[in-house]
Amino acid sequence: MQVSFSPEEIIGIVGPRTTRGRAGKLITGIASLEAAGPGDLSFLGNVKYRTQVAACGASVILLPSDYADEPPDGQMYLLVENPSVALAQICARVEALLWPRPVPGIHASAVIGPGAKIAATATVGPLCVVEAGAEVGEHAHLQAQVFVGRGARVGDHCWLMPGVMVAAECELGRRVRLQPGVVVGSDGFGYEFTNGHHEKVPQVGNVILGDDVEIGANTTLDRARFSQTVVGEGTKIDNLVQIAHNVVIGRHCILCAQVGISGSVTIGDYAVLGGQAGVAGHITIGKGAKIGGGAAVTSTVPPGGFVNGSPAMPYMLERRIVVLKQRLPDLFRRVDAIEERLEKSSAS
Amino acid sequence: MQVSFSPEEIIGIVGPRTTRGRAGKLITGIASLEAAGPGDLSFLGNVKYRTQVAACGASVILLPSDYADEPPDGQMYLLVENPSVALAQICARVEALLWPRPVPGIHASAVIGPGAKIAATATVGPLCVVEAGAEVGEHAHLQAQVFVGRGARVGDHCWLMPGVMVAAECELGRRVRLQPGVVVGSDGFGYEFTNGHHEKVPQVGNVILGDDVEIGANTTLDRARFSQTVVGEGTKIDNLVQIAHNVVIGRHCILCAQVGISGSVTIGDYAVLGGQAGVAGHITIGKGAKIGGGAAVTSTVPPGGFVNGSPAMPYMLERRIVVLKQRLPDLFRRVDAIEERLEKSSAS
Amino acid sequence: MQVSFSPEEIIGIVGPRTTRGRAGKLITGIASLEAAGPGDLSFLGNVKYRTQVAACGASVILLPSDYADEPPDGQMYLLVENPSVALAQICARVEALLWPRPVPGIHASAVIGPGAKIAATATVGPLCVVEAGAEVGEHAHLQAQVFVGRGARVGDHCWLMPGVMVAAECELGRRVRLQPGVVVGSDGFGYEFTNGHHEKVPQVGNVILGDDVEIGANTTLDRARFSQTVVGEGTKIDNLVQIAHNVVIGRHCILCAQVGISGSVTIGDYAVLGGQAGVAGHITIGKGAKIGGGAAVTSTVPPGGFVNGSPAMPYMLERRIVVLKQRLPDLFRRVDAIEERLEKSSAS
Repeated sequence: MQVSFSPEEIIGIVGPRTTRGRAGKLITGIASLEAAGPGDLSFLGNVKYRTQVAACGASVILLPSDYADEPPDGQMYLLVENPSVALAQICARVEALLWPRPVPGIHASAVIGPGAKIAATATVGPLCVVEAGAEVGEHAHLQAQVFVGRGARVGDHCWLMPGVMVAAECELGRRVRLQPGVVVGSDGFGYEFTNGHHEKVPQVGNVILGDDVEIGANTTLDRARFSQTVVGEGTKIDNLVQIAHNVVIGRHCILCAQVGISGSVTIGDYAVLGGQAGVAGHITIGKGAKIGGGAAVTSTVPPGGFVNGSPAMPYMLERRIVVLKQRLPDLFRRVDAIEERLEKSSAS
Repeated sequence: MQVSFSPEEIIGIVGPRTTRGRAGKLITGIASLEAAGPGDLSFLGNVKYRTQVAACGASVILLPSDYADEPPDGQMYLLVENPSVALAQICARVEALLWPRPVPGIHASAVIGPGAKIAATATVGPLCVVEAGAEVGEHAHLQAQVFVGRGARVGDHCWLMPGVMVAAECELGRRVRLQPGVVVGSDGFGYEFTNGHHEKVPQVGNVILGDDVEIGANTTLDRARFSQTVVGEGTKIDNLVQIAHNVVIGRHCILCAQVGISGSVTIGDYAVLGGQAGVAGHITIGKGAKIGGGAAVTSTVPPGGFVNGSPAMPYMLERRIVVLKQRLPDLFRRVDAIEERLEKSSAS
Repeated sequence: MQVSFSPEEIIGIVGPRTTRGRAGKLITGIASLEAAGPGDLSFLGNVKYRTQVAACGASVILLPSDYADEPPDGQMYLLVENPSVALAQICARVEALLWPRPVPGIHASAVIGPGAKIAATATVGPLCVVEAGAEVGEHAHLQAQVFVGRGARVGDHCWLMPGVMVAAECELGRRVRLQPGVVVGSDGFGYEFTNGHHEKVPQVGNVILGDDVEIGANTTLDRARFSQTVVGEGTKIDNLVQIAHNVVIGRHCILCAQVGISGSVTIGDYAVLGGQAGVAGHITIGKGAKIGGGAAVTSTVPPGGFVNGSPAMPYMLERRIVVLKQRLPDLFRRVDAIEERLEKSSAS
């Protein structure tokens, strides 16, 4: 991690109410209270870790302003209103160093098709391909080895990381951030079985990503059979997720890693899907619904619903069944005993 | 979606038996009856949606020839023998626009190794790498940023989309279509535990894909330990699927997204595996077998078998157990009641 | 598979105690006893397949030195101490042909940023990008179309296959082998829900891979929120695995394909995770623990523990419950019968 701040710079960033003690060292890392050592900055983000502060080896610790104790020699306490917010301020500074603003322009090694429109403020990095008729918006950043297909549109301030592939005719809103290896617009998986083989059903729709959508590494989104596969504004999708053709995902949803959404599923705004969950085709998931990790959703989930398990059922029922399942050995024994008792009583 | 047809062009493509009404607008989209608006083409593909036709806002609707009503002003009905077939004809036309036939030749930015044989009719797009001794067949299309390793063979009319990687010595039949990011021929996952660490077992086989195989985005297929990992003719594999070393998949199978097939599994012709299913190592899945979505197959599935659940069991049994599992709270209550009753009766 | 050895060369490689018979043909393949035909080498690796030797069509068969029978005409037996070891010796020879040692140097088409340090003995293949300040160690091999981000470090003797992406500031030890499409250092999936939308939490840590780590195709490893995501020395990870931010994996672990590890999970040395297993956030998995394929781990697993199922529970309990679950239809019938009997007896 590219961190290098003097204690004074840290003070400058977070503006503490009070400082106690002195840190001798340059801050070159950020770590939890338990893991931190000299040269690290740490923080008390949750009151339940309060007892860890005294033993923490960090050079600088961000603490809530009501923290009473004094630091040992060589350690500095910065008392702030909200240590988590102060940490975020420092991380934002580190982030700016980690990802410096790219210089606009098209790298000499990039290959740009005829009629592609690339904004003057956009950056097209090394070894990118932008096919004919594609558009790349203001301040957009194709980092390296990115592919943007014919007629595709990349909105203003988008950031496409290395190896991202956006197929023909797909459309990205503004500030869309695609992690490395994301595929937008692969063919939907549609075949008709005829004469002993699977005949491809043409997949001629596209994919539309709303503003502020973020998508994780190596996730795949299929183009619609016709019309659109849609991801709504502000929705965040994690790594290795599969979004099939004609799926329509609402705004501000969360899809955790390795989720799989089958064709023509509709997901309402603010839904949250845990990791490795799967949703069968043509299902509707209501607004604000929650799907547990690994759940297999095979029927409609109402707005605000919370389902879990495989197949998915209402969360409280599923939790209860999980407990009862673990008591099955006991239940079988009990029924054995009852039967035995009844045998005996009928024999007597 | 790149659609732009006049109503007359639509008529020319589908050759309707009868037309009714007039569409004022250019057709620029295709949508379901429910979603369509002015400028869209829609269709009645399934008789159960018949009641949606009257309220549909599409400019042109494909209908079965026995459809009796008249369209409102500005809407045109095209009566055809089979609306789904007519739609497919239009989609095929759109597909040709979406994916125009590539111009043969090797892009100046591609890197071709010594002794690679590339057919004169093949297209090797920008920033592709074809290593030494590899062969690319007639009319094959390496779209962009594709990698074909040393000694690998890509058959006639194959289409490798951006970012596809075919490792050394692997062989693709004719008309193989690989979506973006597919990896063919990564090392099998084989180690021998010795002296406290995992020693790599050399993986020196290859991967062979039959004619007309299609593989989805970011799917991975491992090379065999020795001999071959095989995918039979006409088999279709969806996105993010894992095929381990020495797997042999038959002809005309369907593997849905995120399926995982462990090493040395054999799958018969015409088998169908639902999304997120997993198959343990060295298992045989019979011809025409069906594996439910999310199923965990841990033992042989006979030809024509249908299994579901985790661990997988025959479908009907699994469905029954799912229902009974949901009645466990009730069953526990019933056994409680029986025991109580017996206690009372023995006490009395 | 690139195999072409005369029987004499095979003898030279394995140094048999005894040879019996003569093989007329060049050896051009390796196959199991069941699958082998003329031109193939086969081997008796496991005594349980002994009866398959007589019917095996291979030209050369590696056999244990106590094997008594004579080969038919045109077949040669090589009697060795350990046929599996002898096979490994041959495979190692094939491997050297499959993956010849790369020629050091930087390909003319590679794009190298300012201040990047690439060892003189390293190979940077065609169309790679090495950003500013990155370091590539002695004998390291970036095969083709590889991305190494700003300030990242690739250790000596690493091998990064086509399409591998190592994001800024990540660090690879020595002899790390990354299969095609691996992503190291994508953003962790962290958001804070505020004012109706998900605000990104900066992810400014990195990923550190220890010596001899191997990672499978299209697997993704997220950078830490701050500090490090760590994979310990000698750990092997299969294809399409997801490693979230701040995960710490010990040394010499095995993670099979499509495993998903949520954020801040800690995994001890020598742990083994079966395919498609999932681990919930902030869980600790003890040293040497085993997690069954498809298991959903939702609580701590002690050192040496073995869990299975969804949610995961101790292996023996889970096996028992699987069996009892399949007997549920019978259990419901038994309880029905008991109730009926009690009704009758109370009625009488």
